[in-house]
Parts: sequence; C-alpha cells; structure tokens
Amino acid sequence: MSRKLKSGLGKSTTDKIFVRGYDLTEELIGKVSLGDVAFLELKDRLPTPQESVMFNAIVVTLVEHGLTPSTIAARLTYFGAPEALQAAVAAGLLGMGDRFGGSIEQAGQIVDSHKAAKHIIPGLGHPIHKPADPRTTRLFALAEENGFAGRHVGLMGLIAQHATEAYGRELPVNATGAIAAIASEMEISWRICRGLAVMARAIGLVAHLQEEMEEPMAPEIWSRAEDEASSEMNSDRV
Amino acid sequence: MSRKLKSGLGKSTTDKIFVRGYDLTEELIGKVSLGDVAFLELKDRLPTPQESVMFNAIVVTLVEHGLTPSTIAARLTYFGAPEALQAAVAAGLLGMGDRFGGSIEQAGQIVDSHKAAKHIIPGLGHPIHKPADPRTTRLFALAEENGFAGRHVGLMGLIAQHATEAYGRELPVNATGAIAAIASEMEISWRICRGLAVMARAIGLVAHLQEEMEEPMAPEIWSRAEDEASSEMNSDRV
Amino acid sequence: MSRKLKSGLGKSTTDKIFVRGYDLTEELIGKVSLGDVAFLELKDRLPTPQESVMFNAIVVTLVEHGLTPSTIAARLTYFGAPEALQAAVAAGLLGMGDRFGGSIEQAGQIVDSHKAAKHIIPGLGHPIHKPADPRTTRLFALAEENGFAGRHVGLMGLIAQHATEAYGRELPVNATGAIAAIASEMEISWRICRGLAVMARAIGLVAHLQEEMEEPMAPEIWSRAEDEASSEMNSDRV
Amino acid sequence: MSRKLKSGLGKSTTDKIFVRGYDLTEELIGKVSLGDVAFLELKDRLPTPQESVMFNAIVVTLVEHGLTPSTIAARLTYFGAPEALQAAVAAGLLGMGDRFGGSIEQAGQIVDSHKAAKHIIPGLGHPIHKPADPRTTRLFALAEENGFAGRHVGLMGLIAQHATEAYGRELPVNATGAIAAIASEMEISWRICRGLAVMARAIGLVAHLQEEMEEPMAPEIWSRAEDEASSEMNSDRV
Repeated sequence: MSRKLKSGLGKSTTDKIFVRGYDLTEELIGKVSLGDVAFLELKDRLPTPQESVMFNAIVVTLVEHGLTPSTIAARLTYFGAPEALQAAVAAGLLGMGDRFGGSIEQAGQIVDSHKAAKHIIPGLGHPIHKPADPRTTRLFALAEENGFAGRHVGLMGLIAQHATEAYGRELPVNATGAIAAIASEMEISWRICRGLAVMARAIGLVAHLQEEMEEPMAPEIWSRAEDEASSEMNSDRV
Repeated sequence: MSRKLKSGLGKSTTDKIFVRGYDLTEELIGKVSLGDVAFLELKDRLPTPQESVMFNAIVVTLVEHGLTPSTIAARLTYFGAPEALQAAVAAGLLGMGDRFGGSIEQAGQIVDSHKAAKHIIPGLGHPIHKPADPRTTRLFALAEENGFAGRHVGLMGLIAQHATEAYGRELPVNATGAIAAIASEMEISWRICRGLAVMARAIGLVAHLQEEMEEPMAPEIWSRAEDEASSEMNSDRV
Repeated sequence: MSRKLKSGLGKSTTDKIFVRGYDLTEELIGKVSLGDVAFLELKDRLPTPQESVMFNAIVVTLVEHGLTPSTIAARLTYFGAPEALQAAVAAGLLGMGDRFGGSIEQAGQIVDSHKAAKHIIPGLGHPIHKPADPRTTRLFALAEENGFAGRHVGLMGLIAQHATEAYGRELPVNATGAIAAIASEMEISWRICRGLAVMARAIGLVAHLQEEMEEPMAPEIWSRAEDEASSEMNSDRV
Repeated sequence: MSRKLKSGLGKSTTDKIFVRGYDLTEELIGKVSLGDVAFLELKDRLPTPQESVMFNAIVVTLVEHGLTPSTIAARLTYFGAPEALQAAVAAGLLGMGDRFGGSIEQAGQIVDSHKAAKHIIPGLGHPIHKPADPRTTRLFALAEENGFAGRHVGLMGLIAQHATEAYGRELPVNATGAIAAIASEMEISWRICRGLAVMARAIGLVAHLQEEMEEPMAPEIWSRAEDEASSEMNSDRV
C-alpha cells in the first residue's frame, strides 16, 4: 500500500498559480519583496513588518563574503563548464558544509568540551572582526527594536561570556551565532538554518560568476597552482 | 608573468565589512531588502524605487514551481545525504539547465527555423497557462507602470505574434520570455539571466527540503520507481 | 609566509605524462586495467595480483544498484540540463551520503547504543538479502583466498554475531560492512571508503544516463509526482 | 495513461543480484575487472579481450590530470564540507563541461569555420604536448593492434592534417580526439563520451581528496586569492 505524495508549496490551474496558498500574480508579484517570499516559503505565511525587517537583515548578512573557497570553486567550475551556470552555483553551494554552517544547536553544546579538544566553538569568535563582530552588534540591535531579543539571544550572549572566560580570550558572538539565535526567536528550525545561508549565498554566487564572465580569475588560479605543485613534485620513480 | 586577481564584490577590515562598496552593517543590514541586495550584487548599485519593484517582481516569479524534476531531485538527494542540506539544494539547481533556462537571446532566434524542427520556442507558450500566462500579464503591467516597457518588451510581443501565426496556434509570451525581455530593459546581461532563476529557486529548494524533513516523499518515489522497473525488467540472460 | 602547494598525483612534461610516478603511456595505458589504476591513485603503487583481485571485487560490487534515489535524481537532473551530463552524474553522487555510506568506523561503535535508539547499524543487515547477503559471502571467500581475511574481517563477523543476539533477529554483515572490513585489511583509510563507492557509482550513473537518453523515465516520474501532490494539496487559503 | 518505468541495469531478488543480466556474485565479483564492468554497463555485454584492452586504455588515460580547475574546486569544496566527500567529488565533476569535453561530433565540424572564429578545434592540438600527444600515439597503436583502427580513426587523422594546413601550425590529434575516434569504432555513442571522462575522473578526484585530507592545499589557495584580491579592490565608495 503506497503512501500519497503531498506538497503544500506550489499549485497551479490554467489561469492561476498559488504559492503557499497565495495567488502569485494577484498577491505576490509586484507587492511583496524577495525576502518576504523567502519567509513565506519557510513559515507558510507572510511576515509582520518587524519580522520582515529582521528576516531580511539576516539573509542580507549572508549574501556576500568576497573570495572564499566557495566562490573560488564556483569560478573554477564555470571555467570548465561555461554552458551550465547553474552547475557553477551548485559547486559553490556544495562547500557550504560543516565548516561554515554553525548553528545555535551546535553553539548550545558545552563550551568546555570544545576547549579541551581545541575545537572552534560554532557561533563564537572571528579571525578578523575583534573584539566584536560588527554584524552581531547590528543584528542584535535590530532584534531589540523589532521584539526578537528573547531568551535564545540571551543564551547566546551567556555562552559567549562563559567561553571568553574559559578560553581566556575574547570570544564574542559572531554573525553566525547571532543569526542562529535570532532565527530561533523567529521559530525557524535549526535544521533549516544552513538553508538560510544557502539561499542567500546563491545570490552572491551568481554575482561572482557575473564578475568572472567579465574578468576571469579561474585560469590564473589554476595555472599558478599547477605550476607551483608541478615544480615541487618529486617521486622516487620519476 | 602572472595576472593579478581582482574582485569588487566583498571586502573587509577588522571593524568594517563592505559589499560592492557599501558598508554592510551601516548601509545594508536592516535598511535594504534581500531583493535589493541581489540587485546591488549584479548591478553594482542599489535600485531606484521602480527598479526595486520590477526586480523583486521578476525574482519572486521564479521562486516556487511546486514539484518539478529539480525539487524532486533535491528531495531524493536529501534522503541519501541528510548531513549535507547544501548538497540537496545544489542537486536541485543542477537541473536548471537548457530545458528550463530560456532567454531573450534564444527567443530572438528566427521562429520559423524552430517550427521546421518542431522545437519549443524559448519564452513562448506554456503547457498549462492558456491562452495567456497570468504572470506575463502582471509583469508586463508592472513594466509599464515602472518605465520598463521599452523595445525589448515590444520585440518579445512581436515574436509571440509572429510565432502564433507561423504555428497556427496560441503562443503567447510566457513568464520566462517576459522576464528575459524586462531583464534586458534593466540592462541585466542575457548571460546572467539563468542566474536570476538560480538565485530565486535556491530559496524555493530550501523550502522544499524543509517540507521533506517534516513529511518525506523521497522514499515513496524511490520505492515506487524501483518496484515498477524491477517488475518490468526482462533480459535474455535472467 | 605562504605555504608551498604540493601534489604527487600527476605531472607532465612536453613529451611525458606521469601518474603517481609511472609513465602514463609506457607503463599504464594498454598495460594496466582501470581498477588497478584506481588502486595506484589511492595507494601510490600498483597492486599485487591478490590485491588486484580483491580491490576490483570491492569496486565491482559497488557499481550498480538499479533504480535508487541517486540514479533517479541523476535522471531528473539530466532531463532539465541535457547540455551537462557531468552535472547529472554529480547530482547522483550528491545523494551518496550518510545514509548509504556506512564504514567500518561507524560499524565499530557499540552495537547496543544503536539498539536503544533503534538506529540501523552500519554494515549489518539488509532489507532484502536474508539471512545472508550473497555479496558478503563472495567477498569474504575472495578475502580468504587472497590473504585479506585478517583481524578486521574477524571483528566485523563478531559485531554481526553480537548484534544478532542483542536484537534477536538476523543481522549478518552486508556488502558495505564486508567492503569496509576488507578495505581496512588493505590499509585503505576509512576516511576514503565512501570514495570507493563514489568512484564505482560514477560508472553506474553514466550507464543510467545512457539508458535515460534512449528511454527516458524522468518526465514520467515528474508528472506522476506533480499530479498526485497537486490533487492532494489543500490549504485554508485556496 | 501513464507510461511504465523500465530499467535494464540492475535487479535483485532475496538471494541474487543481477547487473545487466549477469549474476553479480557468481559471474562478476572476483572474475571481472572494474573497467570491464564499466564496459558491460554501457554496452550490455562483457568485452572481448581486444575490447577490454582498448576500453581500459581509454579510461585509464582519463583518470588523472594533476591539478586542474576540477581538482582544485573539489579540494576547496572538501575544505568547506568535510562531512560530505561525495559532494567534493561532485563539485569536481561539475567543471568537466564544454571546455574539456570535446567529442568526435564536435571534431567533425568544418575546421575552417573554427579558424575564422579563432576557436579551439575539439580533439586537436595541446598547449604542452607538441608536436605529438604521446597518449594519442599509444592509443592509436593499441587501436591498430586490437582491430579498432577503422574509418573514424582515419577520419580524425585527416581532420588533423587539414587543420594543420589551414592554421599553418602543428595541430595533431590530442588524447580527447583519439578517444572520441576509438570510442566511435567501439560503437560507444558520442553522447556518452563525456561520461567516459566523468567516470574515470571520479577515480582521480577521490585520490585528490585523499591527498587533500593528508596535506591540504585548499586553505592556502583560498587565503592567497583573498589577500591578493582584497589588496587590489578599490571602489569609488570605499
């Protein structure tokens, strides 16, 4: 006995298209911004004005990070397969895994156990932005203004404080930690938090590929790496 | 002599982060919506109010299409690799290729040559939405209101008219065709048009995976396909 | 002070190409089989005759599994992006994650803790092949013949025995478990074991796409899923 | 009326597994090499001894190319998502597109039209290996020995000769061109030729990731690219 397939996201008839129950052409196109439709997709309703400010703030934070392993991989992929821009964006997204996808879930683990293992604590500290991550300051201020500075945001601050003491150096909440805490306030599941970064970064990756089309760096990165590694290779057999 | 790597998208110092030259925390977070930052990433400036309406309208159109090969592939991938949500989104994006990524470029090709080869004309016609695609009606109305109903939009209409006559059936401009025409009006390169769909659909794919987490359909699709194909397989050797 | 990039895998001059120190045209092409070059790539030397039999046996086991979420996702991706066969194979590989990539590492964890959580024990049991997985029987026989039935293979058997008792039902070593144990005997790191499946399945995925080119099933899977989910969708708003 | 799904690749019962109609454990595991199973997957029969030599020669040629955009992208992806080795291999495959996937089909196009447009002719010439690609020499010698030096191989040679004259510089058949010609002799469809590279390179990519696990270069490539591009960025706004 097979189970019925169900989906509540999209539906269409000959003259109407619905997204999450809203009439796409009458209620969404030209009336609602991209960020608000992203909220609708995840929460099954349009945001309040406060939620709209807060949610857009979160995803805007995540769009662009300059040259990272992810954007470089996308550019190298585009170099090899210019017929498939979508594959280059996908290659970029593939690197958005455990190393960069910290979450409030992980951040909630006992800090000391990480210290012993010299692990990086997800959501805390930043190699460049010290002592405070300016995005956190801004996001937490917005959370305060819009009514999202609840117990998750408070907890994240306590973890940072405890970690700073335990490690003996500044470990403030970084942008990832702030976003995880605020997403929890907005009742966005921690399991989908990585998806916020993925959807935002897809935008950034398209922009990187546009730049790569105009002024390519992939061939240069390739030839430098190949030349350097070739000059170094030595083997008993060669 | 190696070439210098350059990128104008992101930059950061210890206390400041810049995206396309804008101060991320002071000028963008909490002030600008996700759609407007997407515009900024591609065009290197923030949109005018009219451009903002139009650009958000375009990408909102592209976010959600219900169950498609792309969303089903994403769900099947998530089933096998739940540790890597980013890979499931990437798998979904990989299918957004030539079949679904029509552009004004392609649409501009001579209609009759397609007719002879029984090709689908990119940007024209829709299997369900007849005689008119309701999204096109809405997008072209917004283009009119916001000053983007220029010669590309006009040309697209002429192609549709010509195709309808040549084929002897209704071939109105569909949403892809409308978006391609309007993107051209906004001076967004046809080479990046597929990227608009990719960035928008990344949002939709995350929502599909959220639904899949809560109510999975991948195992059902798998077992049905496997059962059906197994029952059918016959070979001289078995 | 930047670190030097190094790689020992490939090198070429104007008239010679080396792979792992071997002259590609003089020592490998026409002389060594694909499986043996895969061994060379991972182990930095060509296999002994016994290692060759055993290694080829392992990867041959992993090539083809019929219609799975992975092969279906590849076919759906090819449907959308026929210009990029490589992307369809990649989409198929993306699903070869935690659910299907059990390893001796995971198998070595205490069986009872899994029982309590009703987890599947990696490397043990099979939904169809009962009481014994025929591939395990064959692989362990080959391991015996070729001198690879050492302590890892013994340990895997003990775990299966213990699990069968703890759960009160047959939980024999499956093909994944057998491969993990034998790979350990061959000193192939558990961290690369998933890679054996990936390289083998890449072959299988290409074959599935060839079949899909000739007799497509993706459109059918799509339309069935969409029809079924659409007929079911109900929303308070629609 | 829905169409029946069919697949002839894999099938299993409780005690038997079949691949292309062969009993996996009795006829393939321990008896047939990986390369021969790849042939079986594509051609629906095991190879003759001559076909086995020739097919293995082709795919062995394609396994390893050292540091390329594809292997670098795989390493960068692994850096970000070490939990999902399969995604790093997939990212590497994604770059194996039009730029690197020449085929006899493309090679068969009129040479002069390419000359006018200063295009690279697929299958001809090599930036390093001059005047002759040593792999071509070896592959064509094997084709001669094993009975695959038919009209496609002859045609490829003629195209090279014509191109060399038309361009006024050495444009010998490269490895891609040789493989495309021989694959045609073996009645492997040009549409699946890119797949030969994909399956072979999947092996190479796993080896690159194994090396990356032991001696990472991704962080170095990242930090160099980022430092260089940051130092260069200038914008009217910053």
